[in-house]
Amino acid sequence: MTVCFTTERMLHFGDCDISGTAYYPAYLNILNGVVEEFWAHLGWPWHEIIWKERWGTPTVHLSCDFSKPSFFGDKLTFQLTVTKVGKSSVGLKHAIHCGDEHRWSVTQVLAASWLDKHTSMPWPADVKAKLESLMAPDAPERRPVGGPQPQA
Amino acid sequence: MTVCFTTERMLHFGDCDISGTAYYPAYLNILNGVVEEFWAHLGWPWHEIIWKERWGTPTVHLSCDFSKPSFFGDKLTFQLTVTKVGKSSVGLKHAIHCGDEHRWSVTQVLAASWLDKHTSMPWPADVKAKLESLMAPDAPERRPVGGPQPQA
Amino acid sequence: MTVCFTTERMLHFGDCDISGTAYYPAYLNILNGVVEEFWAHLGWPWHEIIWKERWGTPTVHLSCDFSKPSFFGDKLTFQLTVTKVGKSSVGLKHAIHCGDEHRWSVTQVLAASWLDKHTSMPWPADVKAKLESLMAPDAPERRPVGGPQPQA
Amino acid sequence: MTVCFTTERMLHFGDCDISGTAYYPAYLNILNGVVEEFWAHLGWPWHEIIWKERWGTPTVHLSCDFSKPSFFGDKLTFQLTVTKVGKSSVGLKHAIHCGDEHRWSVTQVLAASWLDKHTSMPWPADVKAKLESLMAPDAPERRPVGGPQPQA
Repeated sequence: MTVCFTTERMLHFGDCDISGTAYYPAYLNILNGVVEEFWAHLGWPWHEIIWKERWGTPTVHLSCDFSKPSFFGDKLTFQLTVTKVGKSSVGLKHAIHCGDEHRWSVTQVLAASWLDKHTSMPWPADVKAKLESLMAPDAPERRPVGGPQPQA
Repeated sequence: MTVCFTTERMLHFGDCDISGTAYYPAYLNILNGVVEEFWAHLGWPWHEIIWKERWGTPTVHLSCDFSKPSFFGDKLTFQLTVTKVGKSSVGLKHAIHCGDEHRWSVTQVLAASWLDKHTSMPWPADVKAKLESLMAPDAPERRPVGGPQPQA
Repeated sequence: MTVCFTTERMLHFGDCDISGTAYYPAYLNILNGVVEEFWAHLGWPWHEIIWKERWGTPTVHLSCDFSKPSFFGDKLTFQLTVTKVGKSSVGLKHAIHCGDEHRWSVTQVLAASWLDKHTSMPWPADVKAKLESLMAPDAPERRPVGGPQPQA
Repeated sequence: MTVCFTTERMLHFGDCDISGTAYYPAYLNILNGVVEEFWAHLGWPWHEIIWKERWGTPTVHLSCDFSKPSFFGDKLTFQLTVTKVGKSSVGLKHAIHCGDEHRWSVTQVLAASWLDKHTSMPWPADVKAKLESLMAPDAPERRPVGGPQPQA
């Protein structure tokens, strides 16, 4: 899978607990902001689809491994990968680093849902096409023989 | 496994998003308060072990399934089960209901850690013994010979 | 003025910052929960007026003095006084103690507002009458000699 | 007084309540991040003074007027003014706009404090000098001779 969106966040005072490391609900508030930024980057900012079209993408599954603590003041890099696109859901993977050190990772499933009825809905066709385009593998086997090698 | 701790929380105004349902980082802030209450119930309130002994139990793994939305004003019941006790970790399972309806479930791993060094530590012997006592299976040794085997 | 509502809150792990004392936005999240509990106590729980009648009581003014720090694990007592009732607003005063020690105080103005139009509305007559009844001074000097003594 | 620091924040999904407008404790979490950014801009990032020198600048007074609601997706401009510098305190004023519309305003007092002892401390000399330099009035030397005196 290919990382399709990268962004950064500093760990702020208000995100940290008595130990000076991230309070995990604050971590997830940050993560939600990253996913919000990803949707704006795709062209469907949440505040537009929610206000104008009354649908959203609530999280139905979330799994986190907090491998190493992050400290107040750390600058974190969030890398997002689309892992699966369903009729009305999308699987995401997040890898979070500080410099070269891996800090935590997440798998997450979002479900397209009507805001007022709280029921799932199929993705609009253009949203689904966009999400699927982000899953395209690096496809090295389809590069012509002797062509350039992929770079990290 | 046996549920060894049950408590209740109302979903408050400040926990809900624009759809009137729980914002998931707020859900996890509530969950963290439930786990804090569980440790006080066991006899090791976090504010005592943190202030006096400088250790805590940060979350190293968390996996959540949000099956059905919870609404502002809902009264939720949290049921906690101890699933595994390691040298310096404990596995928990949470089932959250509103009345008879299942709303979300969590598996979580906490690791005993020194607050200042941010390194793991073995459970104090009395803490470990207490956690293990909560895992007591439903007395399989008392099943008649040749009876059915427990299933996972 | 008379204190007309008293409740308690413990300062939890998730409310505290790196110094082990209350993070002030978390303090205000707690305060908002206290005001929510006050309205339920009056007979107009926010989740009922919001869901059924589409009005609420957003805060339009807030002034806080944080006199002394509160520490993780402290048990705080919140005392609420109604100081003024207007056509569509109410003034509140909060005094927050830990045991005998004063910790912080708040003056706050709430405005009755339509949830969807975001415009102010006059209090429903029964709500206004209830709020006004809570402003009654203790007026012990006006009690007849030999009359009953006030109780806590 | 002169605005000495300006920054912007979008109102995110996680900052808003059921009405789609800012939840005021979330507003104050944002404000705290703005003040954190201001201190980094001055040259004393909180994570450096807290980790290395063990002092910080807790809020001892806060007064907010929420004049008009801000909506999910709004882009807010924060303008910060230093209004008073004491031996161990600083007064700040914040004006928050969305485009041309004034949304809310804050007066705030921070007190320099030892992180571990929770007692106030005098500003380090260089910090005090920097804060005082930000209070410089709007160039009085350019007022015509005999012209009106500036008023507080």
